[in-house]
Amino acid sequence: MAKLNWGMIGGGQGSQIGPAHRLGALADGHFTLAAGALDHRPDVGRAYAQSLGVAPDRAYGDWTEMLAGERGRADRVDLVTVATPNATHFEITKAFLEAGFHVLCEKPMTVTVEEGEEIVRIAEKTGKICAVNYCYSAYPMVRQARAMVRAGDIGRVRLVVTNFSHGHHGDATDAENPRVRWRYDPAMAGVSGQFADCGIHALHMASFICDDEVEKLSADFASTISSRVLEDDAMVNFRLSRGTVGRLWTSSVAIGRQHGFDIQVFGETGGFRWASEQPNQLIYTPVGGRTQIIEKGEAGLYEEAKRLSRVAIAHPEGFPLAVANIYCDIADAIRGEARDGLPTAASGLRSMAAVHTAVASAKAGGAWMDARPPMFR
Amino acid sequence: MAKLNWGMIGGGQGSQIGPAHRLGALADGHFTLAAGALDHRPDVGRAYAQSLGVAPDRAYGDWTEMLAGERGRADRVDLVTVATPNATHFEITKAFLEAGFHVLCEKPMTVTVEEGEEIVRIAEKTGKICAVNYCYSAYPMVRQARAMVRAGDIGRVRLVVTNFSHGHHGDATDAENPRVRWRYDPAMAGVSGQFADCGIHALHMASFICDDEVEKLSADFASTISSRVLEDDAMVNFRLSRGTVGRLWTSSVAIGRQHGFDIQVFGETGGFRWASEQPNQLIYTPVGGRTQIIEKGEAGLYEEAKRLSRVAIAHPEGFPLAVANIYCDIADAIRGEARDGLPTAASGLRSMAAVHTAVASAKAGGAWMDARPPMFR
Amino acid sequence: MAKLNWGMIGGGQGSQIGPAHRLGALADGHFTLAAGALDHRPDVGRAYAQSLGVAPDRAYGDWTEMLAGERGRADRVDLVTVATPNATHFEITKAFLEAGFHVLCEKPMTVTVEEGEEIVRIAEKTGKICAVNYCYSAYPMVRQARAMVRAGDIGRVRLVVTNFSHGHHGDATDAENPRVRWRYDPAMAGVSGQFADCGIHALHMASFICDDEVEKLSADFASTISSRVLEDDAMVNFRLSRGTVGRLWTSSVAIGRQHGFDIQVFGETGGFRWASEQPNQLIYTPVGGRTQIIEKGEAGLYEEAKRLSRVAIAHPEGFPLAVANIYCDIADAIRGEARDGLPTAASGLRSMAAVHTAVASAKAGGAWMDARPPMFR
Amino acid sequence: MAKLNWGMIGGGQGSQIGPAHRLGALADGHFTLAAGALDHRPDVGRAYAQSLGVAPDRAYGDWTEMLAGERGRADRVDLVTVATPNATHFEITKAFLEAGFHVLCEKPMTVTVEEGEEIVRIAEKTGKICAVNYCYSAYPMVRQARAMVRAGDIGRVRLVVTNFSHGHHGDATDAENPRVRWRYDPAMAGVSGQFADCGIHALHMASFICDDEVEKLSADFASTISSRVLEDDAMVNFRLSRGTVGRLWTSSVAIGRQHGFDIQVFGETGGFRWASEQPNQLIYTPVGGRTQIIEKGEAGLYEEAKRLSRVAIAHPEGFPLAVANIYCDIADAIRGEARDGLPTAASGLRSMAAVHTAVASAKAGGAWMDARPPMFR
Repeated sequence: MAKLNWGMIGGGQGSQIGPAHRLGALADGHFTLAAGALDHRPDVGRAYAQSLGVAPDRAYGDWTEMLAGERGRADRVDLVTVATPNATHFEITKAFLEAGFHVLCEKPMTVTVEEGEEIVRIAEKTGKICAVNYCYSAYPMVRQARAMVRAGDIGRVRLVVTNFSHGHHGDATDAENPRVRWRYDPAMAGVSGQFADCGIHALHMASFICDDEVEKLSADFASTISSRVLEDDAMVNFRLSRGTVGRLWTSSVAIGRQHGFDIQVFGETGGFRWASEQPNQLIYTPVGGRTQIIEKGEAGLYEEAKRLSRVAIAHPEGFPLAVANIYCDIADAIRGEARDGLPTAASGLRSMAAVHTAVASAKAGGAWMDARPPMFR
Repeated sequence: MAKLNWGMIGGGQGSQIGPAHRLGALADGHFTLAAGALDHRPDVGRAYAQSLGVAPDRAYGDWTEMLAGERGRADRVDLVTVATPNATHFEITKAFLEAGFHVLCEKPMTVTVEEGEEIVRIAEKTGKICAVNYCYSAYPMVRQARAMVRAGDIGRVRLVVTNFSHGHHGDATDAENPRVRWRYDPAMAGVSGQFADCGIHALHMASFICDDEVEKLSADFASTISSRVLEDDAMVNFRLSRGTVGRLWTSSVAIGRQHGFDIQVFGETGGFRWASEQPNQLIYTPVGGRTQIIEKGEAGLYEEAKRLSRVAIAHPEGFPLAVANIYCDIADAIRGEARDGLPTAASGLRSMAAVHTAVASAKAGGAWMDARPPMFR
Repeated sequence: MAKLNWGMIGGGQGSQIGPAHRLGALADGHFTLAAGALDHRPDVGRAYAQSLGVAPDRAYGDWTEMLAGERGRADRVDLVTVATPNATHFEITKAFLEAGFHVLCEKPMTVTVEEGEEIVRIAEKTGKICAVNYCYSAYPMVRQARAMVRAGDIGRVRLVVTNFSHGHHGDATDAENPRVRWRYDPAMAGVSGQFADCGIHALHMASFICDDEVEKLSADFASTISSRVLEDDAMVNFRLSRGTVGRLWTSSVAIGRQHGFDIQVFGETGGFRWASEQPNQLIYTPVGGRTQIIEKGEAGLYEEAKRLSRVAIAHPEGFPLAVANIYCDIADAIRGEARDGLPTAASGLRSMAAVHTAVASAKAGGAWMDARPPMFR
Repeated sequence: MAKLNWGMIGGGQGSQIGPAHRLGALADGHFTLAAGALDHRPDVGRAYAQSLGVAPDRAYGDWTEMLAGERGRADRVDLVTVATPNATHFEITKAFLEAGFHVLCEKPMTVTVEEGEEIVRIAEKTGKICAVNYCYSAYPMVRQARAMVRAGDIGRVRLVVTNFSHGHHGDATDAENPRVRWRYDPAMAGVSGQFADCGIHALHMASFICDDEVEKLSADFASTISSRVLEDDAMVNFRLSRGTVGRLWTSSVAIGRQHGFDIQVFGETGGFRWASEQPNQLIYTPVGGRTQIIEKGEAGLYEEAKRLSRVAIAHPEGFPLAVANIYCDIADAIRGEARDGLPTAASGLRSMAAVHTAVASAKAGGAWMDARPPMFR
């Protein structure tokens, strides 16, 4: 199977997200890094791309140059990853989709709901893949959970409870540190802080596992460090379209939680719990029965979980390989085997709608509001 | 030190709560079971009391008989425990307080806020102890947590997050079982189901550890099993008087959770977590530092934790001894050494105000409402 | 049911074991503390006994006085607990058994194997109960484990692996502290240090759950703190009489382990694990199936587990109530209902034989040796 | 940085180890798969290599063909991975080393001690890297543990206790399954079953973290499933050269353990514990202090841990990336930066000496024997 050509925009030296994408794209041998515009400083980006093995003529100074350079090539990149600052996702994603490239966009896909709707329409029109990197949803045991829900293993889902909380922004003496401060500054982060940063991973996960969509929500936001304009702690109650009750807590001041992303799903005939810090187990309890530990790699898992696991039972696979699973799904899709679990532009749009709705609800004292993007009402 | 005389109302054969109170009162040798009106069937109650060693003339048929019999005795009981059905707590507690007895009342202390205020006034007027059995607050490591907050070990408390969720009412096929059904029937349970049953333990705990009181709240209630009138799942956002943000989730349909009562407290300079299923550890993280495990029995605990622990480090003490700690506090208080941590009528009243406020807020679409009882505004 | 009269020897003010026995005897209302010789200083002991409610004429100065005082009384104590220094267990236990009292002896029951055999013979001859306080075996979930083995739920037991390790003697700068030092001094502790102190709990547990007896063993002892004559770390390999392979590690220098007493049992058709720091769960895995959590209090437990649990599922019961379970078993046995799980003089004897055999094996470079007491060969 | 050329022998389609090596070599972009002899069926191997992107002329039918083909090329492979059946490791490794290639050999490096000594001598003579895939030692937190020991953070190491136990061969009805049976058949597996398969990972880890070597040992082997000639359960007591006491248990019949590889190290001033199922944490306790959780990615880790971690704190990295860390170390070494932690031929030799010594000791009733290879005595 020939390797696919891959191009990356952003994710330069020193970025957190760059290495995760490169490892994700390379680990399973599906992609070759063929082109890149990796840094907002053109020379730095060109040099870094070449140090990673990109040919000099495909080591670009910026994304417009890359678009111009790649669109005419016979061996043009099959996939473009957009890992630039949030405010630029929309225009880059739009431009590459319209030029006929498949795109994997970092979250958030856009800043506004209107932009999100536009991306959805462009992706539909062009028929190109527009994936959004909700990578937690690509852990094998998350896919197992979703498959169990779809198979009816826990009956109708009554309740989903999810948290994504950490304490890494809990030090007030560090709050003016620019790497922290921008997240709570509307000029840089937009309308929401912690909910837009981490909460939407949790909200996507709830929809993803329950195989349903958020319909309405009520939010309570707090800035527990008073110098912050945007929220560093949020609680969102929601309802999915089939009536499932949802509860989502997200915080960046939960000192002692490193990366507490977990989800509990409770149905008529069973419940389960998954946590990102021990991602290789799914804790399952049938109604009236004993709690059981479902292990990645055990016999009898659903195909959706099996195909995204590489090593034997009890050999943990972690976060970078969850990102790699997104790239596996995309590679399969490019090669013609559509992968149902791959998060798409529609998910990216729904997240933005939820963020804007939560902001409005919190301002309105927790009033319940329709959280669906207009085009999906 | 002479033993104190103890009398019990309710808690007859087959009840869950009776054995916990007897063990709690007897374990440390502070009390002798001297009188009792243990069953709503007078003869059964008298016989059972005698089987537990109560003298025949103090084995009463009902609480009015016990009140009449005890009030005139020189060796009258020092303490009366009220463990009868919820609707009767008010009148029994009132009657015994007014007759000059110390009382330990099971929660909920009353059905209405007005009754709660009356009990508070009577307790003040008579100078008698009126304790409410929020027994989880008497675990040594909960007392340690409170002492740490009071000593400023985690700075100002920004956020408290607590859950009390189980799945034991999650089987719809069992929902008509009378032992389950009454909790969701307004005729028997009053205005609230799961929040009044379990949630108020969590709300009390949040106030208790933070050493502060609930000021306002916003609630979202759900009956995930549709035949239920009262809620089986609830989320309550709240604020304490000094601005601490609170989040409380309680559920009885969380299949797989046996008794998930945990609390996380996050302050300016640290955070901690305690869980009732592993009650002998307090997980603590100083800001910028590593997570540490504080063990019951380790050197250097606060006196409040030390005095309520009986055996060496890593020898677990469980729920019945938390109840016993309530009895230790009462025995000390009767003997003249007031115990600051003992939950009082004021706590019982605040809980009832919070329940009624949460019900009203949930009905009003989550509107924020003042949760304080009128007499404390 | 009338209370039984209980007498205690040793366990005076400030002792660790005294409060555990008092709580154990009193918690369930089976016993009244009727007599005591609680301290090696007669006056101190008499005063302390009276402070605990013992009548002045039954607050004795020493055990001989107590034996003389009690043997002639109509209301003499039904049970004597021996909680004195190890070297005195034999003579006190012997004297009270011969005088027709039931005895609960702290471990080790004796210092030598010969003494152990004598106690076994006396107990047989007199027909009195001689129990030894292997209290860990009285946790409900340990009884469940044993019942499962006996019912064949895991098939023939192939392998048992147990650890009892802590780090509380791991500080060399504290090694000369008298409270620590005596355990490693042959003049005070006898032939063995850590193995005799903690290891035999684990060895008893292995036999107890497997319902079988140790036949032979091979030991490796180490004094990791070089000033110690006796071992502070030991590994013992053993075989039970039906061929089960055994592995036992015990240490007092395992810094970071608070009280790591756990046991894993592996049979033909399943395995399980129990740990004293989370004693209310038994982790069970059927061969080829998923790991399951068996909870104290869940439906369908064996009667042996059910009858020793007091409060509902997920309400933890801890160490003091395991001791109380020993007292429940004794109370039942005194009242005529023999309890199969109660550890007897035979267990006390086997432990001493194992200690002496392990010492000899370690000296002989790990040679395998018969570990049975002569009278049981 | 130009990519290095990599060649693989064995690890064909359907093998477990092949994908782990490919992911390990490719994930970080250090290597390109340039050549391969992947299957014992020449045609199958050639086709599979080409499907993975190997040029037709470098897709070889067997290792001799590959040696002949590569040795003369200017762009010959920089590294050869040997992942063939155990009995062939020696001759292939020897041949490639002698031809001037760097080699990464799967464990066990050889079958006999003599062969092991020969490889050590050849590696020394040629100056080529001969690494052995003790990949667990390349987890960041294992490197952290080793660095802490070397820095003296826990003082002199008194005791190391390690287990590598699973239950995947615990089903007697599956024992004749060829994929299981060969491991216990001396004709195929050599002198040892479970100890050679898993135990030596644990023994290597003990030496690795303690930065010391095994000097002598005493073993107890058991075949708990009686049809097995070789052991399926083993306990090995050992001493390191500086006096550290060692305890190692390994089992393949521990039903319920998925992959229980853990290690505890106890020194004069602290102890720690690491477990392969939660590899991103190191649990550390300073003497007299509280247990702390050291997280991969936290500030202040030793450089040895830091450089082998790719994503932020609390984003787990798993087994395949531990293998990748071995490849990172090799790539660095090839490029001239020797990596101290990389397991070498000397480690492979010491493991074989320990296996043969343990077999002999077990046969001799646990007699203590020198476990060092003759050339290192």
